[in-house]
Amino acid sequence: MTGWLTVAGIGPGADDLVTPQVRAALDQATDVLGYIPYVARIPPREGLELHRSDNRQELYRARGALNLAAQGRRVVVVSSGDPGVFAMASALFEALEGQPDPAFEIRILPGITAMLAAAARLGAPLGHDFCAINLSDNLKPWALIERRLRLAAQADFAMAFYNPRSKSRPGGFGRALEILREECGPDRLISFARAISTPDECLRTLTLAEATPEMADMRSMVILGSSTTRRVGRWVYTPRSAP
Amino acid sequence: MTGWLTVAGIGPGADDLVTPQVRAALDQATDVLGYIPYVARIPPREGLELHRSDNRQELYRARGALNLAAQGRRVVVVSSGDPGVFAMASALFEALEGQPDPAFEIRILPGITAMLAAAARLGAPLGHDFCAINLSDNLKPWALIERRLRLAAQADFAMAFYNPRSKSRPGGFGRALEILREECGPDRLISFARAISTPDECLRTLTLAEATPEMADMRSMVILGSSTTRRVGRWVYTPRSAP
Repeated sequence: MTGWLTVAGIGPGADDLVTPQVRAALDQATDVLGYIPYVARIPPREGLELHRSDNRQELYRARGALNLAAQGRRVVVVSSGDPGVFAMASALFEALEGQPDPAFEIRILPGITAMLAAAARLGAPLGHDFCAINLSDNLKPWALIERRLRLAAQADFAMAFYNPRSKSRPGGFGRALEILREECGPDRLISFARAISTPDECLRTLTLAEATPEMADMRSMVILGSSTTRRVGRWVYTPRSAP
Repeated sequence: MTGWLTVAGIGPGADDLVTPQVRAALDQATDVLGYIPYVARIPPREGLELHRSDNRQELYRARGALNLAAQGRRVVVVSSGDPGVFAMASALFEALEGQPDPAFEIRILPGITAMLAAAARLGAPLGHDFCAINLSDNLKPWALIERRLRLAAQADFAMAFYNPRSKSRPGGFGRALEILREECGPDRLISFARAISTPDECLRTLTLAEATPEMADMRSMVILGSSTTRRVGRWVYTPRSAP
């Protein structure tokens, strides 16, 4: 048996947001690895081994996947959303540093990332230039996050925030909101999109003045508008043109 | 018949990157509207009317779609990639400005946007904080593009460039490259991804010093690395951590 290793994005939650490309890889896999709640989305079947690992075990998981593929297994590492956005694809390449080129095929399969699923439910808040920032300071200094927030505000980007807040990092998001209020003013629109495309989905849009840290958790995507972002009916969107 | 209007992302080109959600909407549609090459990707069938329109006809197309849905038709407006990223969703909401709330359902369905499809083929160049900039100055002043490029470079974002160059805008991309060389230095990695997921797909990665304007056209996605973006084997990726 010839092994291969695929890192696949399984989208934000709903089955009908999983691409046929990813579905085909899962159908052919002998082994699926991933963070516990993502592996829970893969239906068990005969001939498929499911390997669950905890959050922050990304490098360990990547090395395990490489070992399995080297043994001839057909391996899919699942990422929520898109594997290339704050997810497993970078961890895999980190694990390949200093190693000989693997003899088996490696593929990265894109998925619907949370910010685009959330944006679609809200309207089109990312319809003009935008940036994506991971608000977790587990792997980068908080000062860099703060610097990026200020420069992104000065560039008048809409901003999508991944991992805005967790139990182990309760304070950062409040500081981020303060910085954004300083840079963008109180009237800027901000949207909270929780558990997008799942039965728990919840959307709310308000102003920066009204936003509080508790509105976000680890299942939330937060999208800040640019200076031109506005409401029309129940929707939020950023026009294509800018002055 | 109850009409509805869906703006759907059909991904960068390959059929197996179209989500089942979008496929289901297309299967139920009576009318599909879009830019000529995107409508060409929709297989004709009995009971389905295909409405092709030219580039830059986005508002006209959006109004036509609203009219058809108001008449009770089941309408899908197709966008390449994701409809919320430099595409038709914003145009639809622009067309709704000042109008009474439509009585029919409107949905935006996300798709695999070009930068994420390109990133997956390259490795994981957008694996850390990044921004997406439309390099066309049709709907914004060139000075704003230049300002965003400089601030994004100072924020050390990886950058994904949509619409880098066209026949009607042959000069802008060369100016963008000059600005990026000034801000990021000659050794920064830049990737050109053309016609991703189609038979014409072509990938190349080189340094900013080696990059020339002719390497991009309207079918290209250009991705500039951050200061930490590097190669491993044939791949390009940005590590998850930053100093």
